[in-house]
Amino acid sequence: MAVITLLTDFGSLYPAAMKGVILKINDSVDIVDITHSIPQADIYTGAFSLYSIVEYFPEGTVHIGVVDPGVGTERRPVAIRAGGHYFVGPDNGLMIPAARKIENNNFEVFDITNKSLTGSKISATFHGRDIFAPVGAHISNGLNIENVGHRIDDYIDLDFGKAKLQNDTVEGRIIYIDDFGNIITNIPAETIFKLAEFGTYLKIFNKTIPLLQSYGFVNEKELIALISSSGFFEVSVNKGNAANKLNVDVNDKINVQLLKN
Amino acid sequence: MAVITLLTDFGSLYPAAMKGVILKINDSVDIVDITHSIPQADIYTGAFSLYSIVEYFPEGTVHIGVVDPGVGTERRPVAIRAGGHYFVGPDNGLMIPAARKIENNNFEVFDITNKSLTGSKISATFHGRDIFAPVGAHISNGLNIENVGHRIDDYIDLDFGKAKLQNDTVEGRIIYIDDFGNIITNIPAETIFKLAEFGTYLKIFNKTIPLLQSYGFVNEKELIALISSSGFFEVSVNKGNAANKLNVDVNDKINVQLLKN
Amino acid sequence: MAVITLLTDFGSLYPAAMKGVILKINDSVDIVDITHSIPQADIYTGAFSLYSIVEYFPEGTVHIGVVDPGVGTERRPVAIRAGGHYFVGPDNGLMIPAARKIENNNFEVFDITNKSLTGSKISATFHGRDIFAPVGAHISNGLNIENVGHRIDDYIDLDFGKAKLQNDTVEGRIIYIDDFGNIITNIPAETIFKLAEFGTYLKIFNKTIPLLQSYGFVNEKELIALISSSGFFEVSVNKGNAANKLNVDVNDKINVQLLKN
Repeated sequence: MAVITLLTDFGSLYPAAMKGVILKINDSVDIVDITHSIPQADIYTGAFSLYSIVEYFPEGTVHIGVVDPGVGTERRPVAIRAGGHYFVGPDNGLMIPAARKIENNNFEVFDITNKSLTGSKISATFHGRDIFAPVGAHISNGLNIENVGHRIDDYIDLDFGKAKLQNDTVEGRIIYIDDFGNIITNIPAETIFKLAEFGTYLKIFNKTIPLLQSYGFVNEKELIALISSSGFFEVSVNKGNAANKLNVDVNDKINVQLLKN
Repeated sequence: MAVITLLTDFGSLYPAAMKGVILKINDSVDIVDITHSIPQADIYTGAFSLYSIVEYFPEGTVHIGVVDPGVGTERRPVAIRAGGHYFVGPDNGLMIPAARKIENNNFEVFDITNKSLTGSKISATFHGRDIFAPVGAHISNGLNIENVGHRIDDYIDLDFGKAKLQNDTVEGRIIYIDDFGNIITNIPAETIFKLAEFGTYLKIFNKTIPLLQSYGFVNEKELIALISSSGFFEVSVNKGNAANKLNVDVNDKINVQLLKN
Repeated sequence: MAVITLLTDFGSLYPAAMKGVILKINDSVDIVDITHSIPQADIYTGAFSLYSIVEYFPEGTVHIGVVDPGVGTERRPVAIRAGGHYFVGPDNGLMIPAARKIENNNFEVFDITNKSLTGSKISATFHGRDIFAPVGAHISNGLNIENVGHRIDDYIDLDFGKAKLQNDTVEGRIIYIDDFGNIITNIPAETIFKLAEFGTYLKIFNKTIPLLQSYGFVNEKELIALISSSGFFEVSVNKGNAANKLNVDVNDKINVQLLKN
């Protein structure tokens, strides 16, 4: 059974219209919601969310992503082939980190121009329903992606930036805050382990925080630094909300310093 | 594969019991959540939600709707056939606008009285699980709807009212506010276009608002009037919440006046 | 088609990684979300939620539950067989009341130690994705549960306590508050009916509250006592939030006294 994933900032109701459209075209597809709670128009958070889960899905999966502040303007609709995965959504960078994770720089981006794949009536505000859902459904049905339009190279790119290690400090950026308030950074595990090891203490936002394996290693409501399940450096509070406690937000800079005894 | 949609005001947990009941009766059905976030007991918002997505689903779909403040009282359970679509839920108007959209006034309403379709134990507070889920599952399995009970004509009706165009003003009503705070009215696109065209300015709630194709045509946080993806006149804020900004709610009246140069 | 249910405190995004992992192992399984909104680390509310819906699912269903404050510590992963149902999750009591409901005390608990069922890389913070999802998927594929590890008897137990009837008062405990604010207690219907009958009045938290069949039997915003759809004594407000009105929380004691004329 083919799999289609959906990631949007639509909240409830609108994703159902996309599912109906998909099921009219392919009635034996498995539709999986990644999330519909991306903050409105936050392409960056959407991109990290898709990036963090893409590899767990089987080859052949079609990922439809719609965080699309430019809907109805000149912004192009695109489809991407990366390894065995497919992506369908707006040309605003949303799907690029996920595609790059699967296929490094060998993914291919196609402008969606084949009007026979979409309905004749295209709303100016809901391309998720009128373009991305039908195109994704046709690809899940076996349509060759090269039939959606022309290959393009001038797609909009997006990346999460590179963390820098200098002396005893790593400088990075917050790229995601999850529903627990856990703070995920763009600092890869291997960069942190050049600086510190489990059991050492770090100075972050002027707090002293231990680097440990998992939440349960500190008392409730205490700060802990760890490696997130997506492989990045994370700052959390055991049974609490780290983002609120530290008063930080997505895109903020974060400096991680090793405390010497 | 048959499709069953679910629309309720249950939030989380309770819909899962309905899904279990359905899967016990039909284990090869595709269950699609429309939404479970209808405001508690708000039949009107539930009715618009179902109305706005029904046409995107394939023929044969069974729509189970449960916004049901009268559960356990004299309120009847009903099933409806409209074109190739089926509806199952309380007799309180919830499903009527959707049925009428599919089949104008030729839909048929049946009182659910066949007790062999439901369990013997029927909770007084959860007909979604004990009546609507099993009846919907049996219909998705091919049961002829005429076997659920008798056809009735005295069902509870519900409509969204009619917008009125007089001189340079359309008078309508707010029928839905989505998760973005976009304000959807009962004014059809064709009525607005008798008054104005894209690029003109409208006076609404004492604000001057341009009528344009899509959100991205105004700056962030600015008001815009447009045609919603459901075909109705909508007032929005680009990357913002129009309902909060204008301090309006579902059921409020809305007057739209054309501004002359 | 096999069924897997998911119950977590993960909110959005993380459950999708679990679904991807499952679909890689079993691509013809039906994945049903029970809820992902359990309050963070609240094993008790998670246990009641699973308990309240388990019996509605078909035999053979695999229930994966992850409310897991001890993830990455010494806490064991377990799988349970109870009647025709299976459970996979942490050894913290989360799944025990549901297993006991299906199979009284004849359920069997197995420590998950067979490393060939999980990936080689196991994150310290996300056993839902790295252990429970793959093990659950293999069981849904027909794997004999005895192959996951050894049977154990020293699993962590959990129950909801026993309500006590003394003279004209039942003393119980609040075990769940749903999304409507309805207060569910551990007092079984049959215990209440030893004390009172429909139409009588009860004294609860110093309020006089009628015992009636369903919400619609009192006016809007009025308190009502009734039997919940899970068979327990419940206190509610018609179209309102009883937990807020009475200022109570999960785990609070509740005394129910029969008012004499």
